[in-house]
Amino acid sequence: MKHTKIKELLSGTNALQEVNVKGWVRTFRNKQFIAVNDGSTINNIQCVVDFENTPDELLKRITTGAAISVIGTLVESKGSGQNYEVQVSKIEILGDSDPEKYPMQPKKHSLEFLRENAHLRIRTNAFGAIMRVRSVLAFAVHQYFQERGFAYVNTPIITGSDAEGAGEMFQVTSLPLDGSAPRNEDGTINYKEDFFAKHTNLTVSGQLEGEAYAMALGQIYTFGPTFRAENSNTSRHLAEFWMIEPEVAFCDLDGNMDLAEDFIKYVVRYAVEKCPDDLKFLESRLLEEEKSKPAAERSEMALLEKLNFVLDNNFKRVSYTEAIDILKASKPNKNKKFQYIIDEWGADLQSEHERFLVEKHFKCPVILFDYPAKIKAFYMRLNEDGKTVRAMDILFPGIGEIVGGSQREERYDVLLEKMQALGIDEKELYWYLDTRKFGSAVHSGFGLGFERLVLFVTGMTNIRDVIPFPRTPQNAEF
Amino acid sequence: MKHTKIKELLSGTNALQEVNVKGWVRTFRNKQFIAVNDGSTINNIQCVVDFENTPDELLKRITTGAAISVIGTLVESKGSGQNYEVQVSKIEILGDSDPEKYPMQPKKHSLEFLRENAHLRIRTNAFGAIMRVRSVLAFAVHQYFQERGFAYVNTPIITGSDAEGAGEMFQVTSLPLDGSAPRNEDGTINYKEDFFAKHTNLTVSGQLEGEAYAMALGQIYTFGPTFRAENSNTSRHLAEFWMIEPEVAFCDLDGNMDLAEDFIKYVVRYAVEKCPDDLKFLESRLLEEEKSKPAAERSEMALLEKLNFVLDNNFKRVSYTEAIDILKASKPNKNKKFQYIIDEWGADLQSEHERFLVEKHFKCPVILFDYPAKIKAFYMRLNEDGKTVRAMDILFPGIGEIVGGSQREERYDVLLEKMQALGIDEKELYWYLDTRKFGSAVHSGFGLGFERLVLFVTGMTNIRDVIPFPRTPQNAEF
Repeated sequence: MKHTKIKELLSGTNALQEVNVKGWVRTFRNKQFIAVNDGSTINNIQCVVDFENTPDELLKRITTGAAISVIGTLVESKGSGQNYEVQVSKIEILGDSDPEKYPMQPKKHSLEFLRENAHLRIRTNAFGAIMRVRSVLAFAVHQYFQERGFAYVNTPIITGSDAEGAGEMFQVTSLPLDGSAPRNEDGTINYKEDFFAKHTNLTVSGQLEGEAYAMALGQIYTFGPTFRAENSNTSRHLAEFWMIEPEVAFCDLDGNMDLAEDFIKYVVRYAVEKCPDDLKFLESRLLEEEKSKPAAERSEMALLEKLNFVLDNNFKRVSYTEAIDILKASKPNKNKKFQYIIDEWGADLQSEHERFLVEKHFKCPVILFDYPAKIKAFYMRLNEDGKTVRAMDILFPGIGEIVGGSQREERYDVLLEKMQALGIDEKELYWYLDTRKFGSAVHSGFGLGFERLVLFVTGMTNIRDVIPFPRTPQNAEF
Repeated sequence: MKHTKIKELLSGTNALQEVNVKGWVRTFRNKQFIAVNDGSTINNIQCVVDFENTPDELLKRITTGAAISVIGTLVESKGSGQNYEVQVSKIEILGDSDPEKYPMQPKKHSLEFLRENAHLRIRTNAFGAIMRVRSVLAFAVHQYFQERGFAYVNTPIITGSDAEGAGEMFQVTSLPLDGSAPRNEDGTINYKEDFFAKHTNLTVSGQLEGEAYAMALGQIYTFGPTFRAENSNTSRHLAEFWMIEPEVAFCDLDGNMDLAEDFIKYVVRYAVEKCPDDLKFLESRLLEEEKSKPAAERSEMALLEKLNFVLDNNFKRVSYTEAIDILKASKPNKNKKFQYIIDEWGADLQSEHERFLVEKHFKCPVILFDYPAKIKAFYMRLNEDGKTVRAMDILFPGIGEIVGGSQREERYDVLLEKMQALGIDEKELYWYLDTRKFGSAVHSGFGLGFERLVLFVTGMTNIRDVIPFPRTPQNAEF
């Protein structure tokens, strides 16, 4: 017979019918109560075994992690914690799980232990919940843009350009590393002999290609993997992560900020509505975890309260110049508690400053805009003051920067001059300059690091726990 | 004032109102009729200029490719070909386009010329249509799986495993190529010093990681870039392409074939329903293109007819053994017209054989299943006959293989033996073996090359024309 998903069984639509459950044993109590999970929901279904009429040999094989198929009648449950359970008439072990060897015992494991077992951690409640929420958030991203007429664009992963400047890049090559790679006469590597007949890297951003597409399709977004070869062993950085980059023609920085705020609220609301059980579990997980912290370090709000706070409040929009004034006058700056003291306009903001603004001063998501040109990328539009650019960063409590964006420099001459001043090869980026040479227009876009969004929504604190198989310095397991 | 998308204007909801159009000039006729496109639809809106009261200097700047902003009244059109047009009251040039220099002239360009200008080809009708259809198909993929409770999983792009065996891999490294990379005592490269402290490649498939997730979440799918460092300069191969890989626990090969057929029909139907204008254009483009071909080489069906044929007919399911019998008895085999003559069971099928089966013999999509174990991957489930595996390939007219899948070998001992026989390092894939060691179960999945699907739906014939910036041997431009 066809098996039914546990999510459907728990909704009760099949009550009093004979059903087939297939899933994995989470626990087995008193030779009688099997908690079975099939991944369709965080909730297990209880399967009640008539243990007096079941061979002991079979009962012994009902162990944590075993895959089983159960046939029985779906009835209302007398126990607490679930509405329906299955009165088992037949049970079959599909795949055993030796309790002496199975690493995922029904007890609390450290997150570090689970990271080392990333292929099995998905079998825990927490990672099942995180990855279902991640999946729902990803769909919300697509739905938001598609409903609004944005085209999804797959910008290249392997790029021959290293002018993007967003960070250190990984090289992609088919040449040998042992010194036998073909050489030019001057002794340098002859990349004409490499697969792509040039030096290639993994992309750090699809923005430039996205701009070319926005200047024809009007509104586009990317959602794909991006890479940083930076030795950042922090809880906020991955060498491989997924980024969302919308780009909109005929849109200025204000429109860009409106889009980013509306977009973030949409996807967070979508997850809150679609994943109530998973988020409730993650909320209690977080409460439990924080019990071991000093009171001062605990979150002020529970997870769902925090998510609803973001949905219900406007992001505070603050210019860089205002932010510098606030920081200069702040207690931690005066008391020299900041590692980097803010003493003048033009300083790059560090994580500590961003956190002060968001978590202590404004106590809400903050959009900082109009940064000094010197600390921002070459493609950002220069303001009339000649010293700031139409950049914006969105800062989130506990996460820091979640979005970075800007209105793009649409004036050919200004862009070219900036590239020349920075030594960016205009021949390499001729195609990008072409978008300003032919039918240029005001346009804007931003990048959102998807894992940081997942971090925020799930309440997890280490970015390695919100992507299935994290890639970080010295780690590319699985 | 806020501008309105052309797609909305053409629907007539703003009739008789003052509207603002922003877009790019496609053509300008008789100093009077501007065809403007903003990418929201393949259709242009005609903006009618009062040329007698417009300065000549301005009229001269209304050239193909220029970005303009037009304010005027939306009125019913007297001309043919459109229902609404704009009576212009004000026109502004946002970005000029020098007609002497703009590469995208309003004439027919060769596809090869357009590939060389991939940053501008998106401004043509054909590529606008292709990329909108591609975007809609991508969304249909997500919607299909999400509606059915599949979780979207981002499997790693950079992989430390080279055991997947699906094809040649690109190396990813931060080490220098000039011979100065650190060495082990035996002279080999010391990858402990590389970024990930091991030798890493770009993934050829997310399947193995996907299986680990399916064995917990039940039903998952991936949709991400995959790579082949193969020197295949054909119209069907890319070095970087996007693949969709669902994986389902408690699902056998029959269920897998049902899923694949239902999935393909869903996404094709979705595109047919959502993209009528783009597909109509692509249909006439194809008809036009085929006029230059000999009658025998033209498609038997027009594009939409072909798509509807796939929707309305069951895919023919044929075992490999039956297929071999058909091929052995076929005219081109007997007359030695095949390059590779089929003379015995066990032969690997070539493209010419697949095309014969699909295009000449069955004249419909075909699912071939139960292939010889020897010509298929190690992870496919061995049948009771000991010589065939539960593999399936879906073959499409004009495209060839669009899906490859299988029921996976769920038996630990059988899998291990197969790996050992093929010399696959079991230590490297310990985590994959773990999925069979703990709670193993019947499961199945397949991979669908997204660009081949886009090829089929758009009627294009070269895979380089259905991805924004194609990567092929000796080509990683933009």
